[in-house]
Amino acid sequence: MSQAKIIDGAAFAAGLRGRVAEGVAAFRAKTGRAPGLAVVLVGEDPASQVYVRSKGKATIEAGMVSIEHKLPPEKTQDDLLALVRELNADPAVDGILVQLPLPAQINENAVIATIDPDKDVDGFNPVNAGRLAIGLHGFVPCTPLGCLMLLKDTLGDLSGLDAVVVGRSNIVGKPMAQLLIRESCTVTVAHSRTKDLPSVVKRADIVVAAVGRPRMIKGDWLKPGATVIDVGINRVPADEPGKTRLVGDVAFDEALSVAGAITPVPKGVGPMTIAVLLRNTLVSACRREHVAVPEGL
Amino acid sequence: MSQAKIIDGAAFAAGLRGRVAEGVAAFRAKTGRAPGLAVVLVGEDPASQVYVRSKGKATIEAGMVSIEHKLPPEKTQDDLLALVRELNADPAVDGILVQLPLPAQINENAVIATIDPDKDVDGFNPVNAGRLAIGLHGFVPCTPLGCLMLLKDTLGDLSGLDAVVVGRSNIVGKPMAQLLIRESCTVTVAHSRTKDLPSVVKRADIVVAAVGRPRMIKGDWLKPGATVIDVGINRVPADEPGKTRLVGDVAFDEALSVAGAITPVPKGVGPMTIAVLLRNTLVSACRREHVAVPEGL
Repeated sequence: MSQAKIIDGAAFAAGLRGRVAEGVAAFRAKTGRAPGLAVVLVGEDPASQVYVRSKGKATIEAGMVSIEHKLPPEKTQDDLLALVRELNADPAVDGILVQLPLPAQINENAVIATIDPDKDVDGFNPVNAGRLAIGLHGFVPCTPLGCLMLLKDTLGDLSGLDAVVVGRSNIVGKPMAQLLIRESCTVTVAHSRTKDLPSVVKRADIVVAAVGRPRMIKGDWLKPGATVIDVGINRVPADEPGKTRLVGDVAFDEALSVAGAITPVPKGVGPMTIAVLLRNTLVSACRREHVAVPEGL
Repeated sequence: MSQAKIIDGAAFAAGLRGRVAEGVAAFRAKTGRAPGLAVVLVGEDPASQVYVRSKGKATIEAGMVSIEHKLPPEKTQDDLLALVRELNADPAVDGILVQLPLPAQINENAVIATIDPDKDVDGFNPVNAGRLAIGLHGFVPCTPLGCLMLLKDTLGDLSGLDAVVVGRSNIVGKPMAQLLIRESCTVTVAHSRTKDLPSVVKRADIVVAAVGRPRMIKGDWLKPGATVIDVGINRVPADEPGKTRLVGDVAFDEALSVAGAITPVPKGVGPMTIAVLLRNTLVSACRREHVAVPEGL
């Protein structure tokens, strides 16, 4: 029985981060400054603290300036909006990321809509969602853009391929579908209300799973040779009592003997998200300084 | 052989226009003013002149104020942007529509992006495309929203149905897909690069055809009982020499014996567009005056 190619997201992300670092060096040489990414954290959510720390570290490793704003959990929406407006106006800031979730007293939509769309490197502002929808330049959310990069690296031209996106979130599923339509795939968006999901998945050359349900998509649902991108990161009990481990939305072991290529969990899509965030920040800096965006990003 | 139900878009549009007129009367009673729709036409394109005239007439018939600005074809982009900004600032204007296409010296995207998203009753501004994409309140382009109304009127709850949208334009195909995802359909977007379009269409409970190719979708492509919405308006030679007639993107006569329901061309989707434009204008006026939007719109 043939075995699927394992798509090494960690290696691809490392390569992308290397290309970003080269691009940053060239940007610094041309403009005399480094691109700056501002990350705002409100409150003390432990997972958010880990993410923010990783992002800050990666930003500095890429040669960029990391600006961290940590606000106490009781901060008001007005406080946060005032900070976002300051960052919008700060010429040293090329990218602004407000770590989600926010405390209950703050309306996330209001905050996201206040971020300057041209500094919105997370791509969550409605203006960027709209630019993606109608084919204008903007910022695309990092995770789906990372998935697209892995797909193009694996398959080359995607035109005419049948793609199924399982999940319709604003952060992954919906922008992923837009990106695949832009690549001229025939795109189906499936979700919890889809009837007969196995047969919908069965017809796809490309399956992007972004539902957050551990190993939901079975090996025998897949079309032989399909390329599978697993966005799920689910913590489940491990064999050893009291321990846990991470699994994706796809039953990886089953899929291995059917798929043509598949991303593992971890070390598949996961490492792409921060790498694309750095990429988006460099792209933003280049656009803002009217410097050509380096090739290969 | 059973015969498909003909979806009478003209009758539904007339009903909607009646409900809008009632809503306008109530709005006038509450606020002391009528909703206002400003339509801007640049140049002398004959088809555009016809559209603008029809829209103005329908606006007045609904009890609203129609404000028409006709600019000569040599007007500059700056002139047009200045006019749009005036209309944005004018409290009597609830909706702004700039008739497309624009003369070559004017960048359509720049004009559309300048219209206040909260007066963008055509729903073409990227902010509204983004709001639709991420599930926020905004304005949805008139033609796909009209198609959705006909679908819900025909089928009731659409949740879980398989829908195929043929065509991926910004004005119809892409927003139509978003609307159907919002209704919990399993949605496939197909287009000119789709392989084996007949089999993609065959699996759909709902087919929305928006490709602009006369009678391209054949009767035997359809799943028996499917609901077919034909957005195409194509002028073709009529039987009588030298005459023309309008046909849709679907081979209507063939489809009649397979589909469960189908919109004719003309008098199907066509009349919905202006009716929804009036509806969007009333909704805009209600939102701007903090008046409840009437039910049944």
